[in-house]
Amino acid sequence: MPAYINDLYSEKISKMKKSIIRELLKLTQKPDVISFAGGLPSPATFPVEEIAEMAREVILKEGDWALQYGATEGITQFRDEIVKILKADDLTVERDNILVTTASQQGLDMVGRVFINSNDPIIIGRPTYVGAISAFRGYDARFIGVSLDDHGMKTDELRSILEDLAAGNERPKFIYTVPDFQNPAGVTLSLERRKDLLKLAKEFKTIIIEDSPYRQLRYTGEHVPQIYKLDGGEGNVIMLQTFSKILFPGLRLGWITAHKDIIDKFVIAKQAMDLCTPPISQSIAYEYCRRGELGPHIKENVALYGKKRKKMLDALDTYMPDDPGIHWTKPEGGLFLWLTLPDYFDVDAMFMEAIEENVAYVTGTAFYADGGGKNAMRLNFSYPTEEQIDQGIQRLAKVIKKNLK
Amino acid sequence: MPAYINDLYSEKISKMKKSIIRELLKLTQKPDVISFAGGLPSPATFPVEEIAEMAREVILKEGDWALQYGATEGITQFRDEIVKILKADDLTVERDNILVTTASQQGLDMVGRVFINSNDPIIIGRPTYVGAISAFRGYDARFIGVSLDDHGMKTDELRSILEDLAAGNERPKFIYTVPDFQNPAGVTLSLERRKDLLKLAKEFKTIIIEDSPYRQLRYTGEHVPQIYKLDGGEGNVIMLQTFSKILFPGLRLGWITAHKDIIDKFVIAKQAMDLCTPPISQSIAYEYCRRGELGPHIKENVALYGKKRKKMLDALDTYMPDDPGIHWTKPEGGLFLWLTLPDYFDVDAMFMEAIEENVAYVTGTAFYADGGGKNAMRLNFSYPTEEQIDQGIQRLAKVIKKNLK
Repeated sequence: MPAYINDLYSEKISKMKKSIIRELLKLTQKPDVISFAGGLPSPATFPVEEIAEMAREVILKEGDWALQYGATEGITQFRDEIVKILKADDLTVERDNILVTTASQQGLDMVGRVFINSNDPIIIGRPTYVGAISAFRGYDARFIGVSLDDHGMKTDELRSILEDLAAGNERPKFIYTVPDFQNPAGVTLSLERRKDLLKLAKEFKTIIIEDSPYRQLRYTGEHVPQIYKLDGGEGNVIMLQTFSKILFPGLRLGWITAHKDIIDKFVIAKQAMDLCTPPISQSIAYEYCRRGELGPHIKENVALYGKKRKKMLDALDTYMPDDPGIHWTKPEGGLFLWLTLPDYFDVDAMFMEAIEENVAYVTGTAFYADGGGKNAMRLNFSYPTEEQIDQGIQRLAKVIKKNLK
Repeated sequence: MPAYINDLYSEKISKMKKSIIRELLKLTQKPDVISFAGGLPSPATFPVEEIAEMAREVILKEGDWALQYGATEGITQFRDEIVKILKADDLTVERDNILVTTASQQGLDMVGRVFINSNDPIIIGRPTYVGAISAFRGYDARFIGVSLDDHGMKTDELRSILEDLAAGNERPKFIYTVPDFQNPAGVTLSLERRKDLLKLAKEFKTIIIEDSPYRQLRYTGEHVPQIYKLDGGEGNVIMLQTFSKILFPGLRLGWITAHKDIIDKFVIAKQAMDLCTPPISQSIAYEYCRRGELGPHIKENVALYGKKRKKMLDALDTYMPDDPGIHWTKPEGGLFLWLTLPDYFDVDAMFMEAIEENVAYVTGTAFYADGGGKNAMRLNFSYPTEEQIDQGIQRLAKVIKKNLK
């Protein structure tokens, strides 16, 4: 390839890196490795036979639209099913508040497209979802991190950051949060903090991006209303959700819930990005929802993942060395928990040791836009079997013990 | 919605507009309108029953990967099928030269992401594909147009533009071309011009984006090699193709063929954009290709569309008024032809008149980034039936006659 081609690349792409997780995952392909690294749903939850049959039937019946180009907003009858999904989660919206996305990652990319100019400040958690960091980095955002504790993003710290920005005549384009069973930390934003967050957004004239891919996967504790619901659909909150964790990821289907005027902007962005989300994916999910299968299916997932979560918490209790610097979150839902080790740990350096012991994790540093996370890791409990969870945590504890001072 | 939210939007989205075509299409939904406006493949070509059966079988057999997250590059066995599709078109590439995209529109968006900084010059045709204009506008490209004639982009005009840019110490990030049966003009870039284009790209140290969604749909004349093939895979050409016109659009499946080093950059961009193209779409197309159905299916499409093309050319000969200012292109393939009217025509203004006569087209202005096209229109012949083509052209001729001076 002629060398001058390298000078043609954009600044944006030059600043972006390959996903650390996706690169790590390649190392975890060794057959004996028990991986807590991925974020994959368990294939045991995939309703393969039902989906195969429904795909056949819906293509026969709805082939006219399932095989043709579709509206950028999404297929009308599928958006109506999404309205019902939200209704079941005690949120009332109209079809016009819904835009179907090619899964939540596209939703994040669209948020970047619609809101971020180069060097615009945005608020994220420390830690935060790595896919959000890469999406927003693609628009050259300036990341400002706010610490999390067991109740989610610390709103007192957020207030002082917003005040500092305001003092310099700035405001963030948005506050990005994963309020339910956060990826990676597993913590849930309390009701009080949700109200605080909304109050702060209004006071400082910014909006909230409520990314909620795991919301329906609650195993314990009580449901907390969406920040979107607390806002009453006034336009201060944009919510992203996905079928990836409640049905299966291979559809690449998600949706944005927002004020109609904001949806209009997203439609313009999406027209240029992929015209529309695959109608064939939409048709299959539509048929599954229409037949009333989604609710019962989510219940089954909750039962399965709830057991896995418990197994991982039990295994951590059983095998982790007793050290004041070692602690972990107790997620009430979702797919992940966050294990913190003593300050002197470097889990990036420890990763190859873990692979030698046939266990894998994602290093905490992946989830910080601004450094941090060197002594923490994300552990996934949805993909491995209960037996693998027990054995994998045992292996991980062994590696950690070796590195304890 | 609080008014301050309007101040949060990015400059990029503020510059973008809703697709003119998509807005026009809404007007063409009246039941009696014969529309030459869309770019839709004929649903008569959709192999609905075969696809329904294959969807069922491939989900049962390959559910493990069809329902899970997939590699950003695309599913391995599907990329191998794409290598075979290119082989059938006399082009030899490796799997690593292929990246599966969520159809060609995403390919265009990714080209923007990977190459364009704000205000970077890029070369396009006058006219050019409207979806490329909106994708590249999303990255704030500076459009420089080069005229087309019956042999495609005029390379002498291109040379002088490149020289002018070089005099100002600039070069375009790329030259965007649809060499086969161009959308909207229907013209094909001659072999000689393809060689010229490649020579110019090398001389002025830029690359060529070869967008070729219609390449397999040739009804007459002789195949011309891809510019990619003329380059011998040296890295000076990036080729975009799609299943939308040769199988059906509802899959939203396309691919990029490029040098491995360039594919690597696209993978980074795509990770942030949607992680991967729906594996379930890939599985269905994979199964269709694997069974050897694609080749025969394309032959059927070519037979059907070839007849429709002839019908439209015949109808134009029969009904169009005899005026030296009225002429149209004679495409050897694809879905469109380009009708030029006398200079004093304003087809935007005439559009509502046409709708009253129950016929629709896309106004030429949609295909120019810099003005132009006021006296031209794009006519699609793939979607309407032969009867509709005959009657629609008759209606269109009537409207045009009324406006002749």
